[in-house]
Amino acid sequence: MDNWLWCLKTDTPQEGYELAILLSQKGVQYTQTSEEIRRVLRPQYAHDANSLIAVSQVIAINFQTVAAANNYWNAPSYY
Amino acid sequence: MDNWLWCLKTDTPQEGYELAILLSQKGVQYTQTSEEIRRVLRPQYAHDANSLIAVSQVIAINFQTVAAANNYWNAPSYY
Amino acid sequence: MDNWLWCLKTDTPQEGYELAILLSQKGVQYTQTSEEIRRVLRPQYAHDANSLIAVSQVIAINFQTVAAANNYWNAPSYY
Amino acid sequence: MDNWLWCLKTDTPQEGYELAILLSQKGVQYTQTSEEIRRVLRPQYAHDANSLIAVSQVIAINFQTVAAANNYWNAPSYY
Amino acid sequence: MDNWLWCLKTDTPQEGYELAILLSQKGVQYTQTSEEIRRVLRPQYAHDANSLIAVSQVIAINFQTVAAANNYWNAPSYY
Amino acid sequence: MDNWLWCLKTDTPQEGYELAILLSQKGVQYTQTSEEIRRVLRPQYAHDANSLIAVSQVIAINFQTVAAANNYWNAPSYY
Repeated sequence: MDNWLWCLKTDTPQEGYELAILLSQKGVQYTQTSEEIRRVLRPQYAHDANSLIAVSQVIAINFQTVAAANNYWNAPSYY
Repeated sequence: MDNWLWCLKTDTPQEGYELAILLSQKGVQYTQTSEEIRRVLRPQYAHDANSLIAVSQVIAINFQTVAAANNYWNAPSYY
Repeated sequence: MDNWLWCLKTDTPQEGYELAILLSQKGVQYTQTSEEIRRVLRPQYAHDANSLIAVSQVIAINFQTVAAANNYWNAPSYY
Repeated sequence: MDNWLWCLKTDTPQEGYELAILLSQKGVQYTQTSEEIRRVLRPQYAHDANSLIAVSQVIAINFQTVAAANNYWNAPSYY
Repeated sequence: MDNWLWCLKTDTPQEGYELAILLSQKGVQYTQTSEEIRRVLRPQYAHDANSLIAVSQVIAINFQTVAAANNYWNAPSYY
Repeated sequence: MDNWLWCLKTDTPQEGYELAILLSQKGVQYTQTSEEIRRVLRPQYAHDANSLIAVSQVIAINFQTVAAANNYWNAPSYY
């Protein structure tokens, strides 16, 4: 797979949350590499409340990682 | 998406818990961007005990992040 | 919602565990605000082993947060 | 409920694991307080592989908490 | 149950991962103590993709604990 | 099983994410050792949105471990 993840640092918590979304999507893409099949599956989970809750959970777990990497955006970063 | 998350700091644990709820909802909103479809799905999970438990779990995971970001509201913050 | 969470500190681990239960219930209450509907749903999960296991998992996640906030009740607290 | 949790410290990792089991059971007991109903439900999950995996997951989450509270049994404790 | 867990330290990450597998199995064994029943259940989950994913998740959670106990095998241990 | 995990350190976050994928796969392989059966099961989860979300969750949990082991790739490593 091409380069897609260089750094876990983001400027703001919202960008960090959006990086967590990307990480969650990549877990699916590595496992199902066909973009066409993923497109077929999309309505299956985007219209199912339990699937959407499960997606939000994966994002929450990845957001924990991104937030820790950014020291919760609390302190100035010297990296 | 518009700006919705500037900071993980809150004044009280309860506000932190409510921010965790917002984070959990955002995970759904980013994945299903149609407000109309989300409105249709709402009764599906709001009347199902297992879905509600799953929602509470996502909130719990996000609350871990928010609580850590606030040093558990234990110490004065100098940020 | 009224104030219900002022502090994550508790005197004992057991009170911390009971606070974790409260946090888990609140995640449901914020999502399904009708007390009547929640009362109807209660037998649905209280008589289902898998639902009860799922509830115990949410409590476990919240207990991680409460335990960390209390430094695992290991050291005297100076807050 | 009577007192059942005074301390998260244990002498050995195995006792810590067994405390994690107790914590996982308590989450069920607080939610379904009838011992009789819990006894009825027991065969339901003790003979279902997915339920047993779910139980093991709750134990794993609680073990994280107990292990952290004991500093992973790595260092002498001065508490 | 006999002694089975004396220490969370391992020499290598792979041994740590294998300890995480043992911890995951023990959660099942404590809950379903009959070796015979567990043998019956084994094909049920070993041939089901979702069960195998769930098993891998329990291992992942236990591996977090073991890895932290070993300081991620990064530094020399003086214990 | 042969040696497959020597170190949790990686040069980049993306390599860390890919190590998290390997860890997630290994949890399945240790539990279902037959490569043939795993090949049969593959289409079962690779075409099911909920399974793919579950896989992404396992990866996310393992990525937390790998990211922590690498200090989130923020600081130079002196190990």
